[in-house]
Amino acid sequence: MKGKVFLVGAGPGDPELLTLKAFRALKTADVVLHDELIGPEILALVPKTAQLRSVGKRCGKKSARQEEINALLVQFALLGLKVIRLKGGDPLIFGRAGEEIEALRQAGIEVEIVPGVTAALAAAAATQIPLTHREKASSLVVLTGHHSAAGFSDWPASLSPKATIVVYMPGYDYEHTAQKLIEAGLKKSTPCAVISRATSSQEQVFRTTLEALPRAPQLEAPTLLVAGEVVRFADHDSLRQQGTWPAPEPNLIPLAEFPEQADSQEQSE
Amino acid sequence: MKGKVFLVGAGPGDPELLTLKAFRALKTADVVLHDELIGPEILALVPKTAQLRSVGKRCGKKSARQEEINALLVQFALLGLKVIRLKGGDPLIFGRAGEEIEALRQAGIEVEIVPGVTAALAAAAATQIPLTHREKASSLVVLTGHHSAAGFSDWPASLSPKATIVVYMPGYDYEHTAQKLIEAGLKKSTPCAVISRATSSQEQVFRTTLEALPRAPQLEAPTLLVAGEVVRFADHDSLRQQGTWPAPEPNLIPLAEFPEQADSQEQSE
Repeated sequence: MKGKVFLVGAGPGDPELLTLKAFRALKTADVVLHDELIGPEILALVPKTAQLRSVGKRCGKKSARQEEINALLVQFALLGLKVIRLKGGDPLIFGRAGEEIEALRQAGIEVEIVPGVTAALAAAAATQIPLTHREKASSLVVLTGHHSAAGFSDWPASLSPKATIVVYMPGYDYEHTAQKLIEAGLKKSTPCAVISRATSSQEQVFRTTLEALPRAPQLEAPTLLVAGEVVRFADHDSLRQQGTWPAPEPNLIPLAEFPEQADSQEQSE
Repeated sequence: MKGKVFLVGAGPGDPELLTLKAFRALKTADVVLHDELIGPEILALVPKTAQLRSVGKRCGKKSARQEEINALLVQFALLGLKVIRLKGGDPLIFGRAGEEIEALRQAGIEVEIVPGVTAALAAAAATQIPLTHREKASSLVVLTGHHSAAGFSDWPASLSPKATIVVYMPGYDYEHTAQKLIEAGLKKSTPCAVISRATSSQEQVFRTTLEALPRAPQLEAPTLLVAGEVVRFADHDSLRQQGTWPAPEPNLIPLAEFPEQADSQEQSE
């Protein structure tokens, strides 16, 4: 009898943010193939009798590597095993799940997807940034800095100033990132926050504006960039305790001095 | 001593998609103020000794009603209680959490946010639609049909054909929704799916194209609309079993006959 493959979202890092379904799937797995970024507390849930194998980072791998993962998933399932493909965050957001699903379907293997708390939601919760807001943000746009070979060239040409933008894996070329967002229609004064290791004990947050983003510190990966008027509402202990809040540089605007409306300060690009 | 308010995401409906943290928060609550859409299995987790109160639907309420909720949260917290504000999906996506957070901060009450699996992730998992895809979708845009007073007029003027679009609470004016998406730059042939009651036992899915969307059946609320090239990859038992897959109308294109590339069929609007 053929086994089954579960593509499971591990959430953002904090094991408490696993879903009950993911928790139970891990507890009963025969084989777990996981991203490198999954933490030891989550991997400790896997039974000692199960095979546990790291299959590399989520993104930026050569296609050969993805093909190897696909082949492993198929092989283990053909042995009749319960196979968990464990991915950081949610499996369907920048997780290359599409390619794995296709390979499994071609091999006639049953697939089930267990969604997870994606990094944008976790980072927003940690910093208390409402991703949508009745007055300030009517939509959410999720992008990545390192998705395809094309990279940034795949970004939408136009972004609404009434959207909240979340960039996964923004990398450290903040100047380029800021420039791309401003070119797409965001104001230079748009508040933004770099959030590092959201929901882990090493979580750090740095808030600034798109204009001043190139001077932001390079926080530890994995990071995430949130840009939009809603970032004004951010509040976070780590911002205050670790001295990155209010911002240490004169060009970075502390909370109290944020202009009420960007519109009154400058014109859009 | 002041109590504390937890804004907790209940996930999409299936109790198994609660996070461990949300599960534990509910188990130890003194008061739970919940959206109407939260199912009985989840509410059953709340201790019998706790106060459990429905405070209406997530969106579309008059501001007076939101102010009442804010006041309730503050009052219960001032009594020193552990207060859970339980919202469908994730609290920071179309949940008006921003207003509640602001009211609580003004009252000097501690707030913690527990993220949840938002409907887009759950619906995508159920239908096996990869929301991003290395070749087909480099970004994800989340919109709503019923967000603010402005409603649709708040939608981005321009959408990338390389984005996956998810519309929360699309309502039943499919013609208007399709028209808005096409005006914003999506092709008429863009595949889309209406997903009803994702992750519940009444889940239903109907797949079509933007052009044929006005003739789609009005599935039970809550629904969600996913539009984009990635919808080609959808696969779902309910689609096949319930006769909505392949589509019953000649204008609705079954899976096998979907054109490989929309580009070859017609020009963009």
